[in-house]
Amino acid sequence: MNKMMALVKEKPEVGAELKEVDIPQLGDEDLLVEVEAAAICGTDIHIYNWTKFAQDRCKLPLLFGHEFCGRVVKKGKAVKRINVGDRVAADTHIPCGKCFQCTTGLMHVCKDMKIIGVHVPGAFAEFSLLPEICAWKISDKTLPELGAIYEPFGIAVHALEPHKVAGRRVLITGAGPIGLFAIGVAKMSGAKTVFSSDISEERLKLARTMGADHTLNPKEVDIPNEILHLTEGFGIDIFIELSGAPEAFTSGLKSIRQGGRVSTIGLFPEPIKVDVVTDIIYKEAVVYGITGRVMFDTWWNAVDIFESKSEFFGQVITDRFKIKDFKKAFELASKASTGKIILTPQ
Amino acid sequence: MNKMMALVKEKPEVGAELKEVDIPQLGDEDLLVEVEAAAICGTDIHIYNWTKFAQDRCKLPLLFGHEFCGRVVKKGKAVKRINVGDRVAADTHIPCGKCFQCTTGLMHVCKDMKIIGVHVPGAFAEFSLLPEICAWKISDKTLPELGAIYEPFGIAVHALEPHKVAGRRVLITGAGPIGLFAIGVAKMSGAKTVFSSDISEERLKLARTMGADHTLNPKEVDIPNEILHLTEGFGIDIFIELSGAPEAFTSGLKSIRQGGRVSTIGLFPEPIKVDVVTDIIYKEAVVYGITGRVMFDTWWNAVDIFESKSEFFGQVITDRFKIKDFKKAFELASKASTGKIILTPQ
Amino acid sequence: MNKMMALVKEKPEVGAELKEVDIPQLGDEDLLVEVEAAAICGTDIHIYNWTKFAQDRCKLPLLFGHEFCGRVVKKGKAVKRINVGDRVAADTHIPCGKCFQCTTGLMHVCKDMKIIGVHVPGAFAEFSLLPEICAWKISDKTLPELGAIYEPFGIAVHALEPHKVAGRRVLITGAGPIGLFAIGVAKMSGAKTVFSSDISEERLKLARTMGADHTLNPKEVDIPNEILHLTEGFGIDIFIELSGAPEAFTSGLKSIRQGGRVSTIGLFPEPIKVDVVTDIIYKEAVVYGITGRVMFDTWWNAVDIFESKSEFFGQVITDRFKIKDFKKAFELASKASTGKIILTPQ
Amino acid sequence: MNKMMALVKEKPEVGAELKEVDIPQLGDEDLLVEVEAAAICGTDIHIYNWTKFAQDRCKLPLLFGHEFCGRVVKKGKAVKRINVGDRVAADTHIPCGKCFQCTTGLMHVCKDMKIIGVHVPGAFAEFSLLPEICAWKISDKTLPELGAIYEPFGIAVHALEPHKVAGRRVLITGAGPIGLFAIGVAKMSGAKTVFSSDISEERLKLARTMGADHTLNPKEVDIPNEILHLTEGFGIDIFIELSGAPEAFTSGLKSIRQGGRVSTIGLFPEPIKVDVVTDIIYKEAVVYGITGRVMFDTWWNAVDIFESKSEFFGQVITDRFKIKDFKKAFELASKASTGKIILTPQ
Repeated sequence: MNKMMALVKEKPEVGAELKEVDIPQLGDEDLLVEVEAAAICGTDIHIYNWTKFAQDRCKLPLLFGHEFCGRVVKKGKAVKRINVGDRVAADTHIPCGKCFQCTTGLMHVCKDMKIIGVHVPGAFAEFSLLPEICAWKISDKTLPELGAIYEPFGIAVHALEPHKVAGRRVLITGAGPIGLFAIGVAKMSGAKTVFSSDISEERLKLARTMGADHTLNPKEVDIPNEILHLTEGFGIDIFIELSGAPEAFTSGLKSIRQGGRVSTIGLFPEPIKVDVVTDIIYKEAVVYGITGRVMFDTWWNAVDIFESKSEFFGQVITDRFKIKDFKKAFELASKASTGKIILTPQ
Repeated sequence: MNKMMALVKEKPEVGAELKEVDIPQLGDEDLLVEVEAAAICGTDIHIYNWTKFAQDRCKLPLLFGHEFCGRVVKKGKAVKRINVGDRVAADTHIPCGKCFQCTTGLMHVCKDMKIIGVHVPGAFAEFSLLPEICAWKISDKTLPELGAIYEPFGIAVHALEPHKVAGRRVLITGAGPIGLFAIGVAKMSGAKTVFSSDISEERLKLARTMGADHTLNPKEVDIPNEILHLTEGFGIDIFIELSGAPEAFTSGLKSIRQGGRVSTIGLFPEPIKVDVVTDIIYKEAVVYGITGRVMFDTWWNAVDIFESKSEFFGQVITDRFKIKDFKKAFELASKASTGKIILTPQ
Repeated sequence: MNKMMALVKEKPEVGAELKEVDIPQLGDEDLLVEVEAAAICGTDIHIYNWTKFAQDRCKLPLLFGHEFCGRVVKKGKAVKRINVGDRVAADTHIPCGKCFQCTTGLMHVCKDMKIIGVHVPGAFAEFSLLPEICAWKISDKTLPELGAIYEPFGIAVHALEPHKVAGRRVLITGAGPIGLFAIGVAKMSGAKTVFSSDISEERLKLARTMGADHTLNPKEVDIPNEILHLTEGFGIDIFIELSGAPEAFTSGLKSIRQGGRVSTIGLFPEPIKVDVVTDIIYKEAVVYGITGRVMFDTWWNAVDIFESKSEFFGQVITDRFKIKDFKKAFELASKASTGKIILTPQ
Repeated sequence: MNKMMALVKEKPEVGAELKEVDIPQLGDEDLLVEVEAAAICGTDIHIYNWTKFAQDRCKLPLLFGHEFCGRVVKKGKAVKRINVGDRVAADTHIPCGKCFQCTTGLMHVCKDMKIIGVHVPGAFAEFSLLPEICAWKISDKTLPELGAIYEPFGIAVHALEPHKVAGRRVLITGAGPIGLFAIGVAKMSGAKTVFSSDISEERLKLARTMGADHTLNPKEVDIPNEILHLTEGFGIDIFIELSGAPEAFTSGLKSIRQGGRVSTIGLFPEPIKVDVVTDIIYKEAVVYGITGRVMFDTWWNAVDIFESKSEFFGQVITDRFKIKDFKKAFELASKASTGKIILTPQ
């Protein structure tokens, strides 16, 4: 018995197919993980809908999905830290382990990185391979769906890592799952005011649940003006871009004060116009490019933050589907109006 | 006797006029400084040539010039730190002294800042007003022309302040005066390799004088490819943009390694296209907007650096004119092929 | 009418005298403030009890007290930012305004600093002089007793400034007023666990009110062992010393993990033995000396933090006295078992 | 043939024995390295002379020595990055690879660390085991004696890593090999002035060779007074303690300015008295405990710095011995008046 059900993208068009495939071959440094739960990421939606972003990056056929947790059922002979029977959550980034970046604490931006569910088979399946270097042990008590969202939660934590938040005015553009996590983390880190913007009223409602003090819909208000008004002319101390919308990046930069700071994470569809002189140079803004999670600084910190408030952060999960109902799940996800959506391979 | 000779821009066209004007009225917190030497800055060239940059920012008539030093001949009654007879160099930025920025070490990006020679009368004249808060005392031994270049030298020091340079690969785009200073500071701070780029061969020659290990002319080579080649695939650790050319910003970002760092200082003529996802997010680059000098952290540091090598850094001054020969000076400056040009009001 | 009631230390023994003295002479840069409320600081207790610490630092007679707020009734002619009628809180540190430290954002550790209530007359009086440079404007809505505790609150904020607290294990030794503030700030900044230690059970009770997860009495438990146990062998990420007890410093250093960080603020009575090799070098600990508040970075941040939770932080005030009852107030304060004690001059 | 010559400490007294021992057994993750050159470290001198420091830490018999380089002649089956035939330099610290520290960029202060030549057999021998995780590849062109000093050179680089040196006044107490390296690195990083102190005039002479601007013998001058004089009252910006002498730590702290910074690396024989209030708190000093080298951030940086000036830094090697002359070597080393001493196993 070495077959499993898996969600595979085969054709260059919208959709995917649930089908039986071979369980992947275990390498010396790999774990074979029985998937308990997987979460749908923005990248997965790109792949499902076969957008230009996906077309530029993926080769078909592709077993996608990369935010997941599960139990180790088999391990390669060079595996050291993890045992069969352990439960693990996955970091999506597979580093080479040898380059400058990998040997200086920057594995998550390895020069020769591979991505689970993009360059190697992913986790919308009964089983998934996971290189040991990408595995984070979780306790037996962690709910499967929570184990599956450590990975995106970690992005939110990493987005805030360069900044001191207590007493500050924070703007978070985009109220998708990572944006919602970031709102929660910013508030529990003592932010004075958190402004959340999104074009979905449903998501802005979720933003308020996660503690946003002000929610702003750019279809209705001019963000920089509104923020100037709400901060009595002070402006934003810390701007976290999580929407991937070029206008959000622009209006966020216009909203920060002189000396403001920026984390940019959301993936823009193409190069964007930036008024570098007015918005970055004359403001002496500092802009941090952020991707993934520092392996494993962010994981340690994220888990410590998450566990103290797991029920609170669990609210970001709004919808759950069995993998056989993947069409409904992806249709809903494509609307960009929910929190996190979970798929379980049963 | 309250008249002086001054270089005034009166008409919205190329040029300026040397004419007699009133010596400006001393305010309570002002110093009246007898100008010993002034240096021509990029902004002054914009004003002289009446470019769009200047048209957007300046009102005529305007007595311009802002990089200068001289001796205090009169002081307002609220002046405390400075005495008549002291020699001073000027910081161009006049802060309000009251806003959040001014009370948290960010005076140089004051919310209500005024600029000498742009918003208030400048220093291409026999005398210039200088608010006490902008004055940096210099010793009686400092040569006038060196006192006049502390201000642009400080920008180079400030550009490098966010970075640790020893052992690193540094790219400095633009080999005008500030670029040349930055090359010198980077080398004496232990940079492993300094790459300098410019489209002027004369300036690249000066770059080599200041210690650049490799000079690159973007008319002749593809900068990112060349750097990849010269660094054996490693890339740039620290990129300092001092050219104000959009292509330089783009090719610099393409040249940095994963985890590279950027200071952007040169003023681009308009908003520019940036591939934020590929060049900033996926690289986890950190981009520092840099303008002016931290008042007075940078001044203390810059002067300590400068004084230990004043002869070396003085080489950046390549041309000297009396103010009556301003036309020749500005024609030469407009060619963008020299080092610093000094004007003396005698 | 230029007399006022004031609490003056005249004799080198325990105690002080409430007596009529001259209202101090206004200098050009001074404000005369009608004191609304003053708080008793540890330094004041030293002065009152005439300890060695006080004998080494103070000259008698001395009008002491320095944590206060009030309304400006008169101002010197060189005062610019503040007007008569404004309400202000005071920073205790009077900087020279000229030295390296004062011109590089380090006014609070000015080389030639004077301290209100130690080197110049203080605030346990109807009126107090306040140099404009030490004045922080407060709103008309701020309760007097809250205005008086911004200063010690700022120390707690400054103590945590070098550290990122979210998700971390924090040990705060000493649960006097500043320790209590620090507990509150650490918890609202997302600390995973806050450990508070003190030898007073009353103070440990207050510590729990402010959010401490674990309170430890060094008379009853061995702090490093207990913490090792409670953190499952992990140790402390961030240690904030606010007791001034040498044993607390030692046991805190023993409690931090490899790579832990320390802020040391409490004033030890004399030089102390430190196992630098084992506790600092081999752990690669980073130890920050902390005193006062960064002027005015900390004030901006502290007020933003305080105002969002003023009722919560106000709980640190446990006792209030009229100045005529100063004996009772200082006797109570000397027991080191309360929160903040307020004196009002009417 | 599985025997080799090795320098073994067998008896609890001064000295060691050169004798034939078994070549150590190769583990799965180990390299067997044919030693080309080894350098004598302070720890080795403690072991040789069987000081209290050594008695507290070492079990006999012990094959000591840990600063070395050589060629890989055999490798364990789980070794990935290194091949037989590669040349490697060694990091002394063997991390567990699993703990919080090891997974967050702090391997060099691993919670369960072992030290080569202290806890496991060392390198004063023909062959030495080296766990792959401790191996740094060096080029075939690197001279053996230079490969052997990368490790102590890295400590000097790491000591300076927390600080920005350009234009600063730096005090380095102790002019042994690491102190000499630190002088050189500080100067080539643009230090305005480097002060070096030692009680050996020979070492102070070497300090001048490495670029020290002022050399101070604490037997002859009062260090804090002398520095105050030489800096015109300013004080030291950055203090690097590399002597291991308690008085040096004290006098260094007295010499720094308000806001000064400290790296403490030299190993004091026992806990020392520190005037925390006056020298750390009131100065807002920041003290960094420094040990070893960040694996491998420091190695990358150190090698880049070293290679650009290998001849210059090679001057720190003053004496070379064959291993059979170890007695002479250790007698000389014990005098604490030389630079680095090299032992070669031929």
